[in-house]
Amino acid sequence: MHFTPSVSLAFTGPTAGQHLADGVLEREFLLGDTPGTLWTPPTAAPAAPAPLILMAHNNGLPRREPRLVARARYTAARGYAVATIDAPGCGDRPRTRAAEQARAELRRAMRAGEPTDELFEALVGPLVEAAAPQWRTTLDALLTLPEIADGPVGYSGWAALGIRLAATDPRIAAAGLFAGGYVPRAQREQARQVTVPLLFLLQWDDEGNPRRRALDLFDAFAATEKTLHANLGGHTGTPAFELEDSSRFYDRHLR
Amino acid sequence: MHFTPSVSLAFTGPTAGQHLADGVLEREFLLGDTPGTLWTPPTAAPAAPAPLILMAHNNGLPRREPRLVARARYTAARGYAVATIDAPGCGDRPRTRAAEQARAELRRAMRAGEPTDELFEALVGPLVEAAAPQWRTTLDALLTLPEIADGPVGYSGWAALGIRLAATDPRIAAAGLFAGGYVPRAQREQARQVTVPLLFLLQWDDEGNPRRRALDLFDAFAATEKTLHANLGGHTGTPAFELEDSSRFYDRHLR
Repeated sequence: MHFTPSVSLAFTGPTAGQHLADGVLEREFLLGDTPGTLWTPPTAAPAAPAPLILMAHNNGLPRREPRLVARARYTAARGYAVATIDAPGCGDRPRTRAAEQARAELRRAMRAGEPTDELFEALVGPLVEAAAPQWRTTLDALLTLPEIADGPVGYSGWAALGIRLAATDPRIAAAGLFAGGYVPRAQREQARQVTVPLLFLLQWDDEGNPRRRALDLFDAFAATEKTLHANLGGHTGTPAFELEDSSRFYDRHLR
Repeated sequence: MHFTPSVSLAFTGPTAGQHLADGVLEREFLLGDTPGTLWTPPTAAPAAPAPLILMAHNNGLPRREPRLVARARYTAARGYAVATIDAPGCGDRPRTRAAEQARAELRRAMRAGEPTDELFEALVGPLVEAAAPQWRTTLDALLTLPEIADGPVGYSGWAALGIRLAATDPRIAAAGLFAGGYVPRAQREQARQVTVPLLFLLQWDDEGNPRRRALDLFDAFAATEKTLHANLGGHTGTPAFELEDSSRFYDRHLR
């Protein structure tokens, strides 16, 4: 069923959007104050609507971050509508005073080699809380578009936000989570309520992400189908073939 | 280059072998006392030789074990020559007195809930030592067949034997290992010499296989490209999609 969106989505930029080399259509949109990007496959049309994947970048990095854009385009070329937003406090949007303070404290603590858990908690916890409702509003609006399938929705990326959404929004039917950022205590608890199929990506040597904690999180999910893919290397070293694996994971659950 | 085989391979059973529904050709062979099976894809011919994958079943289970046969046929249908043998002491071949004793002791200890590590060591250690030379002899012979590509060779299955072969035979270029059986101390050490790309499959809830030990083994491999796939469920619960993932892993490294 369609939810009635509380705010309507307006495409900005060139009316028809921009067709990329692979035929993918890239369009900017605004939803109230929230800027977003929607990529749709060459084939998406009211007659052949594409399943939607919400794609978020760890800890609120900008939606224009090149690695996210590359993943989005690849995924759209494989037949998905992919959407991302800069939620409140994310990307280039104004930061709260508390977030600015937490970021400054974090930088200081990291330089000094001090514990950072509480500082991450103070930064990322509120970021997830502020972002989640905006992602749901975006989802409401996107599902009214005729070129997007009104069926199961996928999620990809930022683990903490994905847990929050998958645990609370029944429209999310499969989630690919990247175990590479701080997951607030609330979401570590909420993991026990996540029952949709999961693909959990771990970089084995991610210095900022204790391996033990990521394995405990994988263990905590209530999903009866969950798969962990761990690869050698640091935070940004995920091998290219994982993109293809992720796409096949969504093929199994969204089509 | 071709190695000169010390024992020559003789096909047994129907001269032309048996063509299966998917076009795969299944042939039984003997190499000295060692019985084996070779599956080749519909396309394999001297003009289009197929890359070889050696497929072994955990702890020397019979080569006719249905799960191994299913994996072999699937893999052959994807363009690989797949071979397996019943190495000395494996399958239905005569067991040593020591192995019989170790098996009986193991059953007793498991029923009594006693520690089993030393008993597994006494059973599996010698099994790997006896099997490895026979697999290498088989490899020598298979690589002389015109329908098998004289190039990089893959390995699939029994982790302990795979470690032993990958650490000592430069022809093995990629290994898919199943973390579901006892790995003797010698092979846990040898893991540090394994440098070929690895796909390591772990069943997250495999009762007979402590998770911590499997993760430590994954950590120990010296390979610069190694991927862990962990799935929910017990020893025999590996999801079907892992077969497809494995096939793509070999595609990346053997073609």
